[in-house]
Amino acid sequence: MDLKPTKPLSGFIELLPAQQRCFDYCASKMLNVLRVSGFSLLDLPAIERAEVLTDKDNWDEIETQMFLFQKGDTKMGLRYDGTVGLSRYVAGHLNNLVFPFRASQFSKRYRGERAQRGRYREFYQMDLDIMGINSLSINYDGEIISVINRALESVAEFIGPAEVLIGSRLFWDALFDYLKLSPDQKKDVFVLIDKKDKMGDEDFAEGLKDTLNNPDKENMIKSVFTDGYKNFVGKSEQLDVAINELTGFIKTLGGMGVKNAKIDLSIARGLAYYTGLVFEFKLINHPELGTAAGGGRYADLAGKFSKTKIIGVGAAIGFSRIFASMLENNQIDLSRFSNPIDVAVLVMGDNNVAYASQIVNALRDAEITAVSYLDTDKKFKNQIEYADKIGARFAAIIGDDEVANNKIALKDMVSGNQESLSINDAVKKIKVQ
Amino acid sequence: MDLKPTKPLSGFIELLPAQQRCFDYCASKMLNVLRVSGFSLLDLPAIERAEVLTDKDNWDEIETQMFLFQKGDTKMGLRYDGTVGLSRYVAGHLNNLVFPFRASQFSKRYRGERAQRGRYREFYQMDLDIMGINSLSINYDGEIISVINRALESVAEFIGPAEVLIGSRLFWDALFDYLKLSPDQKKDVFVLIDKKDKMGDEDFAEGLKDTLNNPDKENMIKSVFTDGYKNFVGKSEQLDVAINELTGFIKTLGGMGVKNAKIDLSIARGLAYYTGLVFEFKLINHPELGTAAGGGRYADLAGKFSKTKIIGVGAAIGFSRIFASMLENNQIDLSRFSNPIDVAVLVMGDNNVAYASQIVNALRDAEITAVSYLDTDKKFKNQIEYADKIGARFAAIIGDDEVANNKIALKDMVSGNQESLSINDAVKKIKVQ
Repeated sequence: MDLKPTKPLSGFIELLPAQQRCFDYCASKMLNVLRVSGFSLLDLPAIERAEVLTDKDNWDEIETQMFLFQKGDTKMGLRYDGTVGLSRYVAGHLNNLVFPFRASQFSKRYRGERAQRGRYREFYQMDLDIMGINSLSINYDGEIISVINRALESVAEFIGPAEVLIGSRLFWDALFDYLKLSPDQKKDVFVLIDKKDKMGDEDFAEGLKDTLNNPDKENMIKSVFTDGYKNFVGKSEQLDVAINELTGFIKTLGGMGVKNAKIDLSIARGLAYYTGLVFEFKLINHPELGTAAGGGRYADLAGKFSKTKIIGVGAAIGFSRIFASMLENNQIDLSRFSNPIDVAVLVMGDNNVAYASQIVNALRDAEITAVSYLDTDKKFKNQIEYADKIGARFAAIIGDDEVANNKIALKDMVSGNQESLSINDAVKKIKVQ
Repeated sequence: MDLKPTKPLSGFIELLPAQQRCFDYCASKMLNVLRVSGFSLLDLPAIERAEVLTDKDNWDEIETQMFLFQKGDTKMGLRYDGTVGLSRYVAGHLNNLVFPFRASQFSKRYRGERAQRGRYREFYQMDLDIMGINSLSINYDGEIISVINRALESVAEFIGPAEVLIGSRLFWDALFDYLKLSPDQKKDVFVLIDKKDKMGDEDFAEGLKDTLNNPDKENMIKSVFTDGYKNFVGKSEQLDVAINELTGFIKTLGGMGVKNAKIDLSIARGLAYYTGLVFEFKLINHPELGTAAGGGRYADLAGKFSKTKIIGVGAAIGFSRIFASMLENNQIDLSRFSNPIDVAVLVMGDNNVAYASQIVNALRDAEITAVSYLDTDKKFKNQIEYADKIGARFAAIIGDDEVANNKIALKDMVSGNQESLSINDAVKKIKVQ
């Protein structure tokens, strides 16, 4: 029989134990920041009805982007982000939740597209959302950014410093109105802006020309990417409102302790549900990762599920994009995660298993990570080799003498020193290390 | 436009925030037991190649049991257990792992069948496996059971005590040989034994009669369920080996501190890959949940991926079966999980957001769970109502006076007392609570 492939499907992540411990450590540090910030961690189904996942009807096209299947008459599929499920959940539990409601999620999402370099088909994102009924102060946009900042800072030893770039959908709306673009032109120009990074400057200029055929307007739009908003101060009331919101927001962020924010109007965040401020986090030492986190404000989260208007601000941290990628590329020093075992308990002979188990249980009760080597017929040489291979800090050797004297032969695997200790003294000694 | 349904698909679990906190608390308690026991937590893809998920070719039938899809030429699907991925992973990383290798998993699994009462289509299991190359002492079977026992004990306040029932595939093989059953009869009788609980005694007797048509043999098999192994001591060498293994194993378990184990030969664990001892955990106060955890020994984990023989013992804890079910049925007192917020920081006026943010950050730095109410134009009455609704232990009220005096008005939401404190004194006071 031919052997089957042992590699996971392309686009799927699989880490070695030490890598996984680092991944989990970073997740727990960041989730703790979210927890002390009062976010409720939700765990929603990975599978949703197709009608929840998309409003589109072009099934064949959707099928290339998602993992879809049909059970009975029901079309369903794997979520591609955290927002689809959240909007359904919040709309379904309006009376069980207190608003403003802070939700976080840390879960796998799925994209059915062909795997490309740096694009996963299964990946973790960490989402934060703050939602209000009918209204929500822009201060919450600052709170979301502040909390993400603190979450990223909590793992800065691995990923280095971050910065956050603030864009504004309002600004572009105001500019388009000022330039008197037609509805079709607005839409097309926005698509160009969103794709500008991928297109490059030349194709972008070409696209603007095709759409607008007006050098003045084209240049004014291009100037936003070189000079920012400054040329547009005082040009229209609508533009001033948008610009004042932006500059006021940067001040609010400063007051919240966010010192690494700057305005960058090229941040557009696609055509999705965002309606106000938008933002993206970049890792300063890792430009190759692109956007580390992104989000913005939406005016109507759950319109397709509820007549209640849910306004919110939300963001997703590209957790796998950051950590799985850095781990797979060996950009993280894993030495702290390589040797998780405090004590390997080596058992010389089957008669000593019961005594050894008492030791193991006592160590574990004391929160000392202990494994027992229970192939008791193996020679001492093999057993100590095992303790060495797993990187155990100590070996606790249990032979007939130890059982008779109610002791442990505790060997320091670094110094090689060995002493005979009571279990209590051994626990104390190991705890000190 | 019609509103879309807000309920998740049937068979999918969705918890409210307090339920979710309890679920996560129990998971973290149990995972900590696994961690101090030296198990490496793996996080494998939820999607596997169809050829990894099944050796069968009857695609239509498989499709009714799993979530399957095709991308390009590749058939793939969602995992239904943790073992399929583990066997692929271990076979693919033989040189990166140290054996005996202890792996744990805590992940969602999927069954595509129509949802039934008490059967989920998406559910968490917590897996433990210890794997060796070519050999592995039966002591590790005891270690797995001991660790599961400790994991369940760590959440006993919610689920009550457990017991573990030990069966033996070896015993049945020996008995079938002793009764001189044909290969076909062995197979058929084993299917009957596995389904006995569902069938009931009468249908079971009927089935035995159809298969064996030999009252003596039928009675001997039936006697195992009433009298256990005792009638078979000394009947054949093979039976004695199996019985000695079982009774010796109970003694080993006792030595490991497992006092709640007993032999129950009706535990058969299906026709799967188990080849030696098998076991099931039941929750004594929750018979309605059936099997809380189950597992056993397998002789060849990864035969379809590798020529290296991986022997192991493994088990899955039905985490959703236990906790999601008890939470959904309100069998757990959630009062400790209902009010996670230590301090609601109420901000009177937009000018005070920066000062309030300093307070919030200082509280969070001190691991105090703090949320800020940032709709600063809302009246005090609305803001204190919010603090009350989220069950905050304290409200920290920030108005112009507090900012001017560098203080916090800290209101105890239980006693109603309010005092003006420095941030340091406030942190101390809150920490004591």
